[in-house]
This record gives sequence, C-alpha cells and structure tokens, in this order.
Amino acid sequence: MARTRGDVARAALEVLTVEGSDAVTHARVAELAGYSKTTLYTHWPSRVDLIALALDALGELPHHDRSGDLRSDLIGELQAFRGGITDMRLDRVLTGMAQWASVEEMRQIRDKINAEGQGPLRTMLEEALHGAELEAAVSMLTGVVACPSIMFGTLPDDEVIAAAVDIVLRSARYRKSPKR
Amino acid sequence: MARTRGDVARAALEVLTVEGSDAVTHARVAELAGYSKTTLYTHWPSRVDLIALALDALGELPHHDRSGDLRSDLIGELQAFRGGITDMRLDRVLTGMAQWASVEEMRQIRDKINAEGQGPLRTMLEEALHGAELEAAVSMLTGVVACPSIMFGTLPDDEVIAAAVDIVLRSARYRKSPKR
Repeated sequence: MARTRGDVARAALEVLTVEGSDAVTHARVAELAGYSKTTLYTHWPSRVDLIALALDALGELPHHDRSGDLRSDLIGELQAFRGGITDMRLDRVLTGMAQWASVEEMRQIRDKINAEGQGPLRTMLEEALHGAELEAAVSMLTGVVACPSIMFGTLPDDEVIAAAVDIVLRSARYRKSPKR
Repeated sequence: MARTRGDVARAALEVLTVEGSDAVTHARVAELAGYSKTTLYTHWPSRVDLIALALDALGELPHHDRSGDLRSDLIGELQAFRGGITDMRLDRVLTGMAQWASVEEMRQIRDKINAEGQGPLRTMLEEALHGAELEAAVSMLTGVVACPSIMFGTLPDDEVIAAAVDIVLRSARYRKSPKR
C-alpha cells in the first residue's frame, strides 16, 4: 500500500503540475500511475482526495540558506521561489490549491503549504519591519515573483527581484517612526 | 442567438466564480442557463470555449477615478481591486485563467484581461518610478491584494494597503539616483 500510495501520489502531482488541476481525475491519474481506476476509487474516493494526495508528494519547498546579510538573503529567498516555479511548477500548485479552496480540507492544506512557503521570508522581514508594513512587505515580495507568473506566465529577472528588495529595505531605512 | 449567448455567458461566469473553473462543464452551465447541452455543444464545442465565453461576460474591471494625488489614487486603485475580489470574485477569475493557460487562446485572453487590470496602476507608478523598480512595484502592489487572497482567502485591510503604497512612495523619494 505504501508503494501504491507513493506511485499514485507522484502521478497525481505530475498531472496537477503538467496538465493543471482540472486534469486531476481518477481516470487520468490511474492511467499515468499504471493502476486500475478501481484501486484509485477504493483508496481515494473523491477528486479532493487525489489533489490532497498530489500535494503530499510535493516534498520540501525550495528555500535559501541564510548568510546573515538581510539584502542578499531576501534576494536569495525570492530566487529560490522563482526556481520552484520553474522546477516544481509552484505557480500551478498555488492556483490549483486556490481552485479547490471551497472544500474545507483543501483550504487547510493550502493554508499550511502557503504559510510554510512564506515562513522564511516573513522571518527575514521581521528584522526590518513590523505591523502593517510587515504584512504589506510579505505580500509584496511574494507578489514580485507570484504575480507575473500567475498573471502572464513570466518570471522576474534578477534585476527586478533586487529592485523589489531594495524598495522594501530603503523604505524601512527612511521611515519616520523608529522601529520600536 | 445574441440572447442565448448572453444567457450562457452569464451562467458560465457564475459557475466559474462561484464553483471554480473545474465546475465549468457543458452539463453544469446548460443546467444553470436553462438551455440543452446540445445547444451548448453546437455553439461552444469545447470547455475552453465556455471559459472564454464566461470571461466575455466579465464586463469592465473595477478601477478608481483619479483625483490627481498619487498616494490616494494608488490606495483607491488597490481598494477597487480588493472590491473586485469581493464583488466579482476576481481571485477566481485570475486562478481560473491561470489553470487554462496551457491553451494558447486562453493565454491571450488572460494576458489581455490582466494587462487591462494592471494598466491604471502601472500608469500611476510611472509618475514615480521607472525601469526595474517600476516593474517590481507593479507586481508588488498587485501582490499586496492578490497574494493573501489567492494564498489564504483573506484580503488586506486599509492600513496594510496604505502601508504598501507608502513603502513604494517613500522608497521612490529616497532612492540615490535621480529619476532621470
């Protein structure tokens, strides 16, 4: 069963990221995994089960190893996110999870994966910002990679990523009220 | 035919935004529109046709009427985008379009709708930024609304929207190199 589960999970993830969440059906996943539809229906009765199983196979999200220099660590983290869109198609994982978020179980999985994805970025930004500006900056730096990808199928180059980090850090340096 | 088209387009958009792009099937849209599946298959043979038709019914995207004050206009534009997520479920339109972007026709429709959506924001930001910082800022301010919505099903409050605009404008004011 563990091997079946692994095979089916990997196949479901491949369908999700290559063909889109719409394509994640018992028939398609069974075909790709080399199991019968009956086997799939027995263990994972609903399409939500298949999507959840696919996300199980996602593995560790790509993160940057911190050097201690905030600017280069932020740039590295955004580059790692960009690499995850290219290598793991995290853009399709993101939009696929959003499509299924009307189901409570999927919403919980989505929130968990996305919070883990944003975690290191948030921790770094806490060194420079707090309150509403921290919340804004977390979404803004996520957005510099996620938005062009989801909206236009393009990715920011290194110059645009560095510009985004500089906008946030320069702003933090010059804001009127002191940090605390 | 014009009336049929309008009825089916509105039904398809309703299915897309209420139930997700996955639910946009001939059977479901025919049921909601009150037409036969045969009628739908005759005029819109594929599911891509139904999604494209739904987007036809989207109408004008919500935008802010400019006052001339850059800060309040940027805040107003982001609030209008946030309102579009609440009222028109633009988050589901965004992720639904992304799901179908492997089809060339859908990719073109997506790019057109998203470029129109970001247009006024870009025009405003051109007053304060250029080059890589302009590209970064367009994605960053889109992201402050789009990212929490797509990733967690939440929306930024007015304070977070204002903080995002202030991060960008403060940074533009204090950058080392002059604007030109």
